[in-house]
Amino acid sequence: MIKNLYNSVNKSNVTIGVIGLGYVGLPLSILFAKKKFKVIGFDIDKKKIQILNKSKSYIKRISDQEINKIYHRGFCTNNFSFIKNCDFIIICVPTPLKKNKPNLEYITSTFSNIKSYLREGQVLILESTSYPGTTREILSKNLSKRFNLGENFFLGFSSERIDPGSNEKFIQKIPKVVSGYSKNCLKIVHHFYKKFFDQIVQAKSLEIAEFSKLVENIYRAVNIGFINEMKIVADKMNLDIYEILKVAKTKPFGFNVFEPGPGVGGHCIPIDPNYLHWKAKKYGIEPKFIKLSEKINTNVLKFILLKIKSVLKFKKSKKNNKKILILGLAYKKNVDDLRESASLKLIDYLNKFRIRYEFSDPFIKTNIVTRDLIIKKKSIKITPINLKRFDLVVLMTDHDIFDYKMIYKFSNKIIDCRGRYQVDNKVIRA
Amino acid sequence: MIKNLYNSVNKSNVTIGVIGLGYVGLPLSILFAKKKFKVIGFDIDKKKIQILNKSKSYIKRISDQEINKIYHRGFCTNNFSFIKNCDFIIICVPTPLKKNKPNLEYITSTFSNIKSYLREGQVLILESTSYPGTTREILSKNLSKRFNLGENFFLGFSSERIDPGSNEKFIQKIPKVVSGYSKNCLKIVHHFYKKFFDQIVQAKSLEIAEFSKLVENIYRAVNIGFINEMKIVADKMNLDIYEILKVAKTKPFGFNVFEPGPGVGGHCIPIDPNYLHWKAKKYGIEPKFIKLSEKINTNVLKFILLKIKSVLKFKKSKKNNKKILILGLAYKKNVDDLRESASLKLIDYLNKFRIRYEFSDPFIKTNIVTRDLIIKKKSIKITPINLKRFDLVVLMTDHDIFDYKMIYKFSNKIIDCRGRYQVDNKVIRA
Repeated sequence: MIKNLYNSVNKSNVTIGVIGLGYVGLPLSILFAKKKFKVIGFDIDKKKIQILNKSKSYIKRISDQEINKIYHRGFCTNNFSFIKNCDFIIICVPTPLKKNKPNLEYITSTFSNIKSYLREGQVLILESTSYPGTTREILSKNLSKRFNLGENFFLGFSSERIDPGSNEKFIQKIPKVVSGYSKNCLKIVHHFYKKFFDQIVQAKSLEIAEFSKLVENIYRAVNIGFINEMKIVADKMNLDIYEILKVAKTKPFGFNVFEPGPGVGGHCIPIDPNYLHWKAKKYGIEPKFIKLSEKINTNVLKFILLKIKSVLKFKKSKKNNKKILILGLAYKKNVDDLRESASLKLIDYLNKFRIRYEFSDPFIKTNIVTRDLIIKKKSIKITPINLKRFDLVVLMTDHDIFDYKMIYKFSNKIIDCRGRYQVDNKVIRA
Repeated sequence: MIKNLYNSVNKSNVTIGVIGLGYVGLPLSILFAKKKFKVIGFDIDKKKIQILNKSKSYIKRISDQEINKIYHRGFCTNNFSFIKNCDFIIICVPTPLKKNKPNLEYITSTFSNIKSYLREGQVLILESTSYPGTTREILSKNLSKRFNLGENFFLGFSSERIDPGSNEKFIQKIPKVVSGYSKNCLKIVHHFYKKFFDQIVQAKSLEIAEFSKLVENIYRAVNIGFINEMKIVADKMNLDIYEILKVAKTKPFGFNVFEPGPGVGGHCIPIDPNYLHWKAKKYGIEPKFIKLSEKINTNVLKFILLKIKSVLKFKKSKKNNKKILILGLAYKKNVDDLRESASLKLIDYLNKFRIRYEFSDPFIKTNIVTRDLIIKKKSIKITPINLKRFDLVVLMTDHDIFDYKMIYKFSNKIIDCRGRYQVDNKVIRA
């Protein structure tokens, strides 16, 4: 059976099902289609399917043309019965948190949706980031009741390493980590991805692969937390962290600079570390770096809020008519991605303290509705007249498209959380 | 006055005094001498001066030939009256801890030793790592009583970035950070080091420079602490951290691997972070990452001890005649440097639990006497017969000179704290 699969892959004669057409699944589907494989994209979100079925993209950095490539080779659907047509099935569904704990609902419901369409000779690969043991505990336990895993059905885990806004278009250049339930599973998963990726990295087990992905992201969370703490310490000493880092980063070995900022956002850094934390606690150990990073990366917003209040001379008892302009809502520059964005959390604070604000983000066109927040404002245009209207401008996300000279010239006061400006009478670091 | 100094530097016609002829001062003196400047080396350690005066080196990686270069251009002495002959005075004395607090005794006693020999037209530069504010608080406060700082006397701070065992011989290639008490001070300090170093980095203030050096080292402490924590978590899950990191480090962006190990050693990582911690607390803020790293980097020894005990089937109540061999005492591979070495701390534990041990470290020839520990043993030779005598071999420092094949072949059991071996029936990870 594995030989047949090998040959079919060699002949590009397999159908690939990608479940979850988001920031991971969509670029992956496009890659498969580009390499002339048949692709069926699955998603439970009917709206998404409708947009995609018009060969339109709903992610800014992915063009309609790219989406069109999928339709040269397949289609998108919310009908999971097409799973039976797939030889390779790749799960790229979200793994968010629920009350700070791993929420594997999307994986388990995916499995429920597809299980009756699974058949011998298929290969199932999880790409969703999760704690070590997920693939084994959630998928293999179920599958091994029906199949002889590694003989007539194959299971693997492969971590995704997409950096939204920077490398969706050349994911094939990022070394691809593969792992398998058994040796045969590893072999066929390796053989499959080798068709698409320049370099394959074999992990010794499913758990090693799952853990490695978490280490990659926790490393970032820890270092951002560390540098944000250094920022707050430097501020207490009346020193500018950006000046300190400008010097430190000239060390040519043993040092890698992380940028301080208003906190962490996106789907990875604020979420993934909690997956390991939760699982480790099951083993009776608490990884302390994870919670410390989280705490500091959250506290940094309070630090910014204090700076805002001091500029506005905010006193709880008095009415304060001053108004601030928030520059940038996305969680990082040059993207339209609002997931876990620090700016939204800041707005939450501002609402709480009844501090009046507007925002400007050229990437955010639609109304903002998240689970925690509804923002009934629209992005305003940055013009000299508009800038002058505000007592304070808070630079949260430093999109390259902003006209920083103009912003400096016409703002009354700027709180710069991104190190775009030098500190002076007008500019305060936060 | 500054113009005269400029010209004298240009003509290589200045005498440089280097105070503290250790891991920092000695390579620096050699560099000055190589560039044909007159150098006077100062140290309070008479033994050290005696050795150096025979043109001998007392540091393994610095050759006698190199020391001899100093004597082509000057001499070494413990007589501080020669300070009056120096135009540039560079302080490279240790800044250790005393009860976990910064111990600036060496800086203050140096200042006492030299102050009566200071004169107009000199430039004093601190290279010792310390908390932000040291140069200003300790040196400028004293000096400004007698001199017009920046006019007839000049003061600066420049961080050292020597990595013992790897770059002493080409320190001129490491970008050199300079800072000054005033603009004139910065100018002359910059001008001076430019004669010797390929690249000069100006910091905006003394404190920025002092802080930047600490950030560089705290970054390492934090990342080693983080990866050691990940090691312990992985171990609980019965996963090998080295397998995980082998995979993770294939990520080509946003990840930099640090090696797990038995803790941290050397003069920098275990000590410097405490300098910032102490100073930050004076400002009413506690940098939590520093103490967490320290705690985990210390706890990792307990983790190793537990592994040792479990291999030896150690029970407190029973007498245990088993014997272990410690491989490597130096704090890192290929050096003879024992400062703050984890192996010494492990030996301290072994003594406490009356676990019998021997050690082998080809770099450690003399008796070991530290402030906390006297070891009345000598390094034993690694031979098949010797290896067989031990119930357990603990690889603490993975010197390249060790014959790893032979060690594997003839050891009964190995605890590998450095990831040199693959885990199998004989090898346990710790």
